Amino acid sequence: MVGMRIVVLAGGIGGARFLLGVREHARSIGAEVTAIVNVGDDVWMHGLRICPDLDSVMYTLGDGIDPGRGWGRAGETWSVKEELASYGAEPTWFGLGDRDIATHLVRSTMLAAGQPLSAITARLCERWQPGINLLPASDDRVETHVVLADRAIHFQEWWVRHKAELPAQRFVFLGAETATPASGVMEALAQADVILIAPSNPVVSIAPILAIPGIKDALKAPVAGISPIIGGAPVRGMADKCLSAIGVECTAAGVGSLYADFLTAWLVDPADADDTVVNGVTVVPTPLWMTDVPTTATMVRSALSALEK
Amino acid sequence: MVGMRIVVLAGGIGGARFLLGVREHARSIGAEVTAIVNVGDDVWMHGLRICPDLDSVMYTLGDGIDPGRGWGRAGETWSVKEELASYGAEPTWFGLGDRDIATHLVRSTMLAAGQPLSAITARLCERWQPGINLLPASDDRVETHVVLADRAIHFQEWWVRHKAELPAQRFVFLGAETATPASGVMEALAQADVILIAPSNPVVSIAPILAIPGIKDALKAPVAGISPIIGGAPVRGMADKCLSAIGVECTAAGVGSLYADFLTAWLVDPADADDTVVNGVTVVPTPLWMTDVPTTATMVRSALSALEK
Repeated sequence: MVGMRIVVLAGGIGGARFLLGVREHARSIGAEVTAIVNVGDDVWMHGLRICPDLDSVMYTLGDGIDPGRGWGRAGETWSVKEELASYGAEPTWFGLGDRDIATHLVRSTMLAAGQPLSAITARLCERWQPGINLLPASDDRVETHVVLADRAIHFQEWWVRHKAELPAQRFVFLGAETATPASGVMEALAQADVILIAPSNPVVSIAPILAIPGIKDALKAPVAGISPIIGGAPVRGMADKCLSAIGVECTAAGVGSLYADFLTAWLVDPADADDTVVNGVTVVPTPLWMTDVPTTATMVRSALSALEK
Repeated sequence: MVGMRIVVLAGGIGGARFLLGVREHARSIGAEVTAIVNVGDDVWMHGLRICPDLDSVMYTLGDGIDPGRGWGRAGETWSVKEELASYGAEPTWFGLGDRDIATHLVRSTMLAAGQPLSAITARLCERWQPGINLLPASDDRVETHVVLADRAIHFQEWWVRHKAELPAQRFVFLGAETATPASGVMEALAQADVILIAPSNPVVSIAPILAIPGIKDALKAPVAGISPIIGGAPVRGMADKCLSAIGVECTAAGVGSLYADFLTAWLVDPADADDTVVNGVTVVPTPLWMTDVPTTATMVRSALSALEK
């Protein structure tokens, strides 16, 4: 459908790779793509504002990502990180590459000058030319913190430093209650022909987007979701540990149930097709391994087809 | 003299190299050294607080300086600078190395947390162990700006970007009038047995220190100055362009006259001895090329000897 407007809710590395497929398919049909990206992972470190999900999407679509790691910049150097460690400057556990730091410097300087994150993201994308409209879910500070037995820590500390090994009791999206959707988000959702939920972590990538007042209610267009769980295990990352913390089973059905309110179609891998029933939702078996961009584009075509029915 | 307390007013690369000689000689006689360093060159760039003179001294005495350039870090990499240029982030003309940036990140983060520059400098020196007490002239913002025909610009822009080629009408030390000496400065001057004026640029390294109310009046101990001019030309840098802007001739006598109020002895190179007369000041001919540390230490010994007479 030429002129179709596709909006994707996404976060993390899975979201970034999925968007490569969305862009590919959208180009083939002349559609426009807007990605609304999680900001819950964002963090201040060493005085720099770091937006891991926005940057993963921007670098991936702008062909600047390190393909091996899946995050950060290709051809990265690590002089600053080494030096910060020599100063004993904490934290030392976060992968802060030199090239990446330039992005954070530009962003932090613009934030200090009073610019909203959405405008800053647009400025950074002038360089990266991601070929989609890239929006943070909010211009306000919404940060995922993890409640442990004895304290709460920033999501990054739990995820990167502790490798999600400390038992999480729940996740709190600090600031979400009073946050508003970023400039452009509500307009994109209102004009969307279809909405896709990327195969991102449902608990810490998609939920923080949906926690921002107004966004969930604005999912009026048909919504297709892609399961991040194949055969009872996360495709990548540690979604299992996040799901167990909120008492949801780590299955395609479990994640689908989180989205049941607004979902039209739920794409699951053939491996999960027999076991997946989500109330009121069309379950669509489709191969979900994003092995390359054409395969991912095929998943997107399946999702759009499911919504046309 | 064991237990002697030597205070040095210094700035720039010449100041850093001179301090190597001061430290060497002080070790040989069991003296303590405090350097009071110019902050007029300090600047915010890309959200980072950069203190070129403090860092030159710290890196030089901590054996972390790039010996070829004379500024910045040995083994430096330039990824951040390249990336900032790719974003079109101005300014692009300042040499901001990756290793150096770590220093600025630690400093800027501590400044944002409300710590004074003197405490931050002490923290950075825990790593560098310069072997002297390193103090900024002020914890307040004192910035050298250069008045041109049509506008005023930060000293760094004039010096680095324009290579001091734009005719300067005068130099303004913004903030100096209301600044106070940094923590430790007045105590060091009060307890000094001798005070040395490093062969630094008199107009933009030494004058901004002296412009901070209280410092000039605290030069009660005998003061020896070392001429930064040999044979009518600056040893390094562009002091000639600074001197001409303030109408002082570029000679050892010209610079000495700027310090005449508080100077006891004025060390000039033998090349300038015949032509140098400064009212009320003992002119001491001494070879002033700082070719290596022992030679520089010999200059320092000559300066101290001159003050003993």
